Formats: sequence, C-alpha cells, structure tokens
Amino acid sequence: MKIELINIGDELLIGQTINTNASWLGSFFAERGVRIYKTTVITDERDDILNQINAAVDRSDVIIITGGLGPTKDDITKKTLADFFNSPLVMNEEMLTKNTAYFARSGRAMLQINIDQALVPECCEVLINENGTAPGMLFRHGKTLIFSLPGVPYEMKAFVENQIFPILQEEFEITDIYHESVMTTGRGESFLADKIEDWENRMRNDSLSLAYLPSPGIVRLRVSSYHGKKDTEKVKAYIAELVDILGDDYYGREGETLSGVVGKYLSKLGMTLSTTESCTSGSLASEIVKTPGASKYYEGSLLTYSYAMKTHLAGVAPEIYETHGAVSQECVEAMALGGKERLKSDFCLATSGIAGPDGGTPEKPVGTVWLALAHPNGVESKLFHFPGNRERNIHMSVLAALNMLRLHVLKNHNI
Amino acid sequence: MKIELINIGDELLIGQTINTNASWLGSFFAERGVRIYKTTVITDERDDILNQINAAVDRSDVIIITGGLGPTKDDITKKTLADFFNSPLVMNEEMLTKNTAYFARSGRAMLQINIDQALVPECCEVLINENGTAPGMLFRHGKTLIFSLPGVPYEMKAFVENQIFPILQEEFEITDIYHESVMTTGRGESFLADKIEDWENRMRNDSLSLAYLPSPGIVRLRVSSYHGKKDTEKVKAYIAELVDILGDDYYGREGETLSGVVGKYLSKLGMTLSTTESCTSGSLASEIVKTPGASKYYEGSLLTYSYAMKTHLAGVAPEIYETHGAVSQECVEAMALGGKERLKSDFCLATSGIAGPDGGTPEKPVGTVWLALAHPNGVESKLFHFPGNRERNIHMSVLAALNMLRLHVLKNHNI
Repeated sequence: MKIELINIGDELLIGQTINTNASWLGSFFAERGVRIYKTTVITDERDDILNQINAAVDRSDVIIITGGLGPTKDDITKKTLADFFNSPLVMNEEMLTKNTAYFARSGRAMLQINIDQALVPECCEVLINENGTAPGMLFRHGKTLIFSLPGVPYEMKAFVENQIFPILQEEFEITDIYHESVMTTGRGESFLADKIEDWENRMRNDSLSLAYLPSPGIVRLRVSSYHGKKDTEKVKAYIAELVDILGDDYYGREGETLSGVVGKYLSKLGMTLSTTESCTSGSLASEIVKTPGASKYYEGSLLTYSYAMKTHLAGVAPEIYETHGAVSQECVEAMALGGKERLKSDFCLATSGIAGPDGGTPEKPVGTVWLALAHPNGVESKLFHFPGNRERNIHMSVLAALNMLRLHVLKNHNI
Repeated sequence: MKIELINIGDELLIGQTINTNASWLGSFFAERGVRIYKTTVITDERDDILNQINAAVDRSDVIIITGGLGPTKDDITKKTLADFFNSPLVMNEEMLTKNTAYFARSGRAMLQINIDQALVPECCEVLINENGTAPGMLFRHGKTLIFSLPGVPYEMKAFVENQIFPILQEEFEITDIYHESVMTTGRGESFLADKIEDWENRMRNDSLSLAYLPSPGIVRLRVSSYHGKKDTEKVKAYIAELVDILGDDYYGREGETLSGVVGKYLSKLGMTLSTTESCTSGSLASEIVKTPGASKYYEGSLLTYSYAMKTHLAGVAPEIYETHGAVSQECVEAMALGGKERLKSDFCLATSGIAGPDGGTPEKPVGTVWLALAHPNGVESKLFHFPGNRERNIHMSVLAALNMLRLHVLKNHNI
C-alpha cells in the first residue's frame, strides 16, 4: 500500500505552525508497518490543490489530505474536492444535527458559515467528526482512496485511529505487526548494543526485529514481529530475557517515565521526597509533579539560586561554597542534607551545576553538574559532564537525578 | 521568485524527527517577503529524489534541498545529484583541508568516508560549510537554481543566512521589506484590534502593513514596509505612536521576554524577587532564571507542593487552607507574604491553582489560578480562569504572574 500525505495550509509554509501532524501520522503508520512515502505541504490555493491531487491519484493507493476545512473563506479544500469530483455540495443531516446541538450547548448563535460546515460533496462517504464541527470525507477515484480531514491535531488523530485505519485494514493487506518496548536510561545506543549483542542475534535469527529509539537520556528498545499477535508469547519471552540482561539499565515498560517509576517506588515504600535545586531551577520539581498523585510523596522544593539562599534555606555553611564553590561535591551534598532536614522528607535530591550558556570556566566548563541524594542512611553524590546546550543540560540533569534515586532504591529497598 | 523546498530523509517520514527545518525556512523567507509555495518530504531513495527534482526544475525558480549529505551509505543525495547532472565527483580541496584540520584538532582518525565528504559533482559551485564537514552545493539548470544543503539545522541555517540569501538577493528582484515589532501581553487579538483601529487604518492608508502574530499569552504586532530601509523613520514614528496607544499592554520590543523586562526593571531599581510556587511547580522559577544575570535579583523559590510545606516553608497558617482551600485568595496572599519574609526579598510572586488534568471541581474547575504579589507596601492578588490543558495553564500562569509584577512596578516606581 502506497500512502502519501498532503497538508494544506499557508500557516505551515510560512513557518507559523510546525507540521506535527505529518510527524504524528508518519509515526502512527510506521508503528503499524505502513510507510508514508511522500508528504507535500501546499498553499490554500485552488490550482495548487488540484495539481497535487491530480499527481497523487496516479501514483498512490491512499491519499490523506489534512487542513483547509475550517468555516472561513480561506479554507477551500472541500469546495475544491467537490469541483475535482464534479459533485455538488449537499447537507449532511447527521453532522448538522450534531453541530446544532453543540452550538445550543455552548449558548452561541449558529451563523450561516457554521451551518455550512455540514455541507459535503454528494459523492463522498461522510466520516462523522466526534471532536469538532468539520466532517471528514472519503472519496474513491479508481482504486485510490482519498481521505480529507481537518488539520486540528486531536480531531485528525481521532479520525485516523478510529475510522481511517480500520477502513485501510479492511481494504488492504496490512502486515499485522506486534510490538513491545522497554525503556532504558543512562546508557548510549552503542553501549546497549554491545551488552545485548548475543540476545539480539538470537532474536533476529528467530524472525523478530529490534529498533533502537533514542531520545535525550533515554533509549527505547522495540521488539517487533511481522506475524502479529500470533507471536505475542514469543515476543514476551524475549522481552523478559532482555529485561534480565539489561539489569539496572532497564527502568520500565513502554510509555513509563522515570518520574513515574520513581513515584511508584516511593508510594510502595510509603516514603517521601523533596528537592533542593540550583542549576535545574525548578525543572526537577516540574518533572516530578507531572506524575499524577505526586502530592502523596513529594513534599516540595527549595530553589536556592543564590549563595545566600543556599545558606538561609538549605543551611549550607558559607565556608563550603567559599572554599569549594557552589558547583562542588561538598556543596551539593550539603544542599541535599539540608533540604532533607528542612523539608522533613526521607529522600532529598540536590542539583548544582553550570547549565550554560554562561558561567563556565576551564576547570568547570558548561555541562559540569553535581548531583546528590540524601537518604535515610546518609548522602551520595556523583559528577556529570553533559555535552549539550542549556536546555539539554538541564533535561539530562533532571533525568540523571531521578535515575540516581531509582538506582538507590533498587539497591537498598525491597521493590 | 518561486521557491520550493525538498526535504530528504526517512526519519522525517516515519515521524522520528519533526520537520523544524521546513518551518524555520518558511518563516525566514516569509519575513523577507519571499514565499515558499511547496514543501515535499521524500525518502532517501534514488528514484524518489530524481522524480522530485525533475518535477521541480520545470516549475520553480529556486529549489532548496536539505538532507541526505551525511557520510554513511544511506545518504545518497550527492551521488544522485551527480547522476542527474551527469557530472563526475571530484575532490574539493578547500573543504578537504578544512575537514582534515577538524579531525586533527579533535584527535580522531579520518576514515575514507570522512575524506569522501569533500567530494562534489564537478559542475556545482561549492558552498563551504563553516559548521560541519558536508559542503553545500549550488547547481544551475536553465534558469533554475538548485541548492543542496545538509539537514543538520544549525548548519543549514548558517548556509541560508550567510550564503544563499545573499546569492538570491543578487540574482532575483526581492522586495526589500523593513519590519519592526512590538510585544504585548494580557490581551487577545480582537481586543487589541479594537484598541488600535484608528491607528491601524491610518498606517495602512500610509502604505504600511500590520500582522498580528499570536502565541500563548503574547501577541506580537509587526509593522512592515515594502519600501525597505527608506521607510525606517516612517515605521519608527508609527511604532512610537502604537506604543503610546497600547499603554500597559505593550511590554517590549521584538525578541524581549516578560522575564527579561521584569529583570531589567528589578536591576534598575536594585530590588529583589523571590517566588512561592504551587501549581506552577518550578516553571515560574525556571522562566525567571532563563534571563542571563537573574542571580543578581532573583533569590530563589519555595515549592510548596503539599499543605504541610505551605505552612512549614512559607508560614501559611493551617486555618487558611483548612477554611478556604489551597486555591484561594487567602492562601495565595499568605504564600506571597510568607515567601517574601522567609526569602528576604522586596517582591514575592505566589501561584496556587488547578493546572489539571485532575483536581478540578464544579466551583474551581481546571484552569482556576490565584496569583499574588507581595511588595514593599503589602500584597495584591488576582483570580484567573485559563481555558487550556495542564501545560498551557502553567505557561499562562507564569506569564500572568510576571505581568502582574511588571504592571505593579510600572505603576509604583519610576522606570
């Protein structure tokens, strides 16, 4: 099946909107063994739209068009498709009823342009929009299927997941792919590849495939079978073995975050966490509270940005930063211990480093970060050298701090 | 001048990488009065590349190709262009010398694939890469200019800014556009349009144009002249008048952030700031310290995520949240006053709200946020109802808090 994507919208071409629809669709279909082989972004102009559809119907089995279905005059996709198929616009009563009810509920008057949202070319199969007012449309041109969808991301996604993919599964032979992923942190791809080499060779010889999916600080390892759900047990057995081999480098299943895993451990142990942040300046706290229910185990944070506040809030003795500087093992350990005591928690993570862009020195270049964990039996700390820009260094510091706590808990508690 | 863009790379089509190059290029050219009218993303496959170039040379004056210039086997753009132009690959000595020096400096051995990076089709004009090892290339096909650039964003951007745009200015008639922008916050587009209507009509009648460029919490107003630098004084006069009309809704010139403006004011006054955060959970601190030199006026933050910490760290009396809840005027004012006292600062901003997705009630739905500012003469507070998801509500709370301080300073101090 050859799928191509046409995104219509001036806002994409002038860079006002980043084309996240294209990346979401690319990844949605890739995960299901189908590749979008071409994506074209064009203006809201009739000739451009007609030319593009004309070219696409001759080479592709499926065309997904997004955008240009809004109620205003600059959105002309529907009208242009009606002309292309030489099919008059007719009112779709189901969509009209739904839209009328929506306007009534929100207490807004329905203008003519709102009513006209429910018009569709007579020849199309209407796809009801569960999340908005513009209907989706399916046209057939010879053997080619042409879908037209709104550009609003969550409307478009619901159409693809709930209506379009099921139609494609029915009308085309789509390889039934079965995936399972595990999440790792703290190691690069080449280190992992080396560590799991034997296992990887065996699973590949057993007709499975493996993808390394890296993002900053995290590598996701995805095992796929092209025999679909039939291979579920086989994939699960390899995954179990992989988790064993990875040991501490494994932190969770697909979709789990480090913050979530740490939260799960703390909840299970009935223990609490606080933070004393300098270089991460709130990002560590922010990541921790992204996990629903974090208020059960997370006490809060001291943001000790200045020397004075390190002393005043976390009780760091001035001699420490005067002698060793704020970015030092001594200071970060004092911050963790002080935070733990002042915030009355079982654990306290502290960060002190040079995130950049300024503040680096030859001895402590940008990316130098000390992390410490105060725990019920004392304190431990570790030095990191991150190679990134400010944003990346802060992100890596946050993940490394959470990982430090995760590894400590795994080693010292029964999880 | 008709420009089209071709992005080559499987990673874009399977959604592993978001196509930020396309949005950056779109915005770069739009700001200079030139529109990219079509963007196509294709695979790293020879036939797809050849077909796309063949179609593009017949319809466009300028083609910018990005991607596929890496040293590994899957990057075939250069070889395919050599075939398209029937031109043998030859060594570019300048690029080779530069790359050899780079490898020597970083102490890495130069492999054959690294040496081959400096090969280029004989017929092209070589554009030296100041930020990487892959040369850029300019081909001419009839009157069409074809640029091939690496897909690495900062390498691509430097090529476009320093080499490609100057070439286009020389070879095409590009309207010389002159822009100036002002930044506003706290008001929507329609409110602003109403407020500046007379001014807008006058400037439009005077051959200038205006764009409303909204992003969450901020609207940038951009005045443009299509007569270029000749109109500098005229644009500046209208901008001065606009700033007057906008009053407090204006906060700074293009590129200025609210955090930067607040920092400028505090530095000028020699006054200090702290924060007591609940629903923004570190994001306010994080935004404040993005401004270089923030350590001069920013003392730090108390993250009082739990009830206990509101009391323990910020000294909020338990009766307050027991009677009114944490998301209340009483609680947020106590947090601001407590933070100001404990952190010994002149100002303290406090946030307490329901960011979502959980925690909403009929009386206090998701998006309900109380903000308070403790200042040398007391405390003020304000209730907001943001309509967004968690991330958006936190972002809007951060901007609204900074704006609260900005407005207070403007009203009560000599700036």
